[in-house]
Amino acid sequence: MSEPSRRQGRLFGIGVGPGDPELVTVKATKILAASPVVAFFAKKGSRGVARGIVDRWIGAGCLELPLAYPLTTEISFRDPGYAEALHEFYVQAAKTVAAHLLEGRDVALVCEGDPLFYGSFIHLYAELKGRFAVEIVPGITGMAGCWSAAQIPIACGDDVFTVLPATLRPAELVRHLGTSDAVVFIKIGANLAKVRMAVSAAGRMAEAVYVEHGTSADQKISRLAEKIGDDAPYFALIVIPGRGRRR
Amino acid sequence: MSEPSRRQGRLFGIGVGPGDPELVTVKATKILAASPVVAFFAKKGSRGVARGIVDRWIGAGCLELPLAYPLTTEISFRDPGYAEALHEFYVQAAKTVAAHLLEGRDVALVCEGDPLFYGSFIHLYAELKGRFAVEIVPGITGMAGCWSAAQIPIACGDDVFTVLPATLRPAELVRHLGTSDAVVFIKIGANLAKVRMAVSAAGRMAEAVYVEHGTSADQKISRLAEKIGDDAPYFALIVIPGRGRRR
Repeated sequence: MSEPSRRQGRLFGIGVGPGDPELVTVKATKILAASPVVAFFAKKGSRGVARGIVDRWIGAGCLELPLAYPLTTEISFRDPGYAEALHEFYVQAAKTVAAHLLEGRDVALVCEGDPLFYGSFIHLYAELKGRFAVEIVPGITGMAGCWSAAQIPIACGDDVFTVLPATLRPAELVRHLGTSDAVVFIKIGANLAKVRMAVSAAGRMAEAVYVEHGTSADQKISRLAEKIGDDAPYFALIVIPGRGRRR
Repeated sequence: MSEPSRRQGRLFGIGVGPGDPELVTVKATKILAASPVVAFFAKKGSRGVARGIVDRWIGAGCLELPLAYPLTTEISFRDPGYAEALHEFYVQAAKTVAAHLLEGRDVALVCEGDPLFYGSFIHLYAELKGRFAVEIVPGITGMAGCWSAAQIPIACGDDVFTVLPATLRPAELVRHLGTSDAVVFIKIGANLAKVRMAVSAAGRMAEAVYVEHGTSADQKISRLAEKIGDDAPYFALIVIPGRGRRR
């Protein structure tokens, strides 16, 4: 393994924000306009969220490089085989990207939200760092897009702020709700009923807000208590603001 | 109190990101270029961080509206009188802003990082919401700027992510370090020695990274264990990444 060479391309991990194309940073738009290759994660046959957001920002002549997740209909998420298949996918995706870098082409990998905050980019970065020059451009997180759209002051003063994957066990969700002032639940999808129960058990239902597709045209915002049914997209969020605690 | 009128100006809470002027969103630059009044919080006699960041983005003819914090040399932060003085300051600042809105001028209040994430904007918003039309433009948080600059994948998988004000009691810091995978300490300033002890007590010193002035020209990044002395700016951060937990 040699030091990154000047003849190699550079890898850019570009955060493209929560959905509104104007919530992309100036820095990201400049890199995207100049990048010969734009890569993005997507389900097979779909363009993916991040690629859709940057439609107006990429150069006309750029090469598009979809990195298509393996189909998941045959293996359950809970199956250890799923984690293995996913790891193998990231190894292959890294090879695909590396091929361009080795030929001297910069690659801009666009990521929903922020690349290093619960992003798939992290897995690709783990494979390629050290071998290639990497630059990370932070993005507006999905949660910041949601609390801004809903005009919820999420945390101030000495509030403790916690992000909880809704995939955790109910007891753990309730425990964190008890020790945190401000909370954002991510990875809602099939876990909405569980989160609802945890929020209710912790006595915080009155403050909880449900946000779907925040900052995009399909945006939906409601009190969690008034959200009908337990269907929710994976990227929906539930937001509970802090109260501006003093120590 | 009447409904927001069309003749009134609108209040924009504009997140301007962590320091690099190119980490401002396209949406923010458009609003700033068109805004007749640009307001910013600052210490008396200083221009403040947020105003410095948007130097290149504001219109040539705009009116600059500094909202100068009261001097704090005579009252200690811990004195209840300080909280009162600060509250009175926000009430007065809201009146200053409202005067422009009532005369039909839009006001863009620029905020470091994100307006609703531990931002002074929250206090002004509390005074003015309902009376005036408000739009919030989210910004890249200081912490996202720091973990991107340091190339630290902060959280992935089922990691629990927690933001801890360093102002909290040591026992509380240690407890949260024990139940969280990824942690960011904010409000470091005079609390660096306390955070150091808590991180050490929780056995996480090896992973902790200290970042000062992230994304700006004065940026400094080091392992916390190697940071010399306990002097630190208020806006320095300490970042401990998660390990990509699975439930």
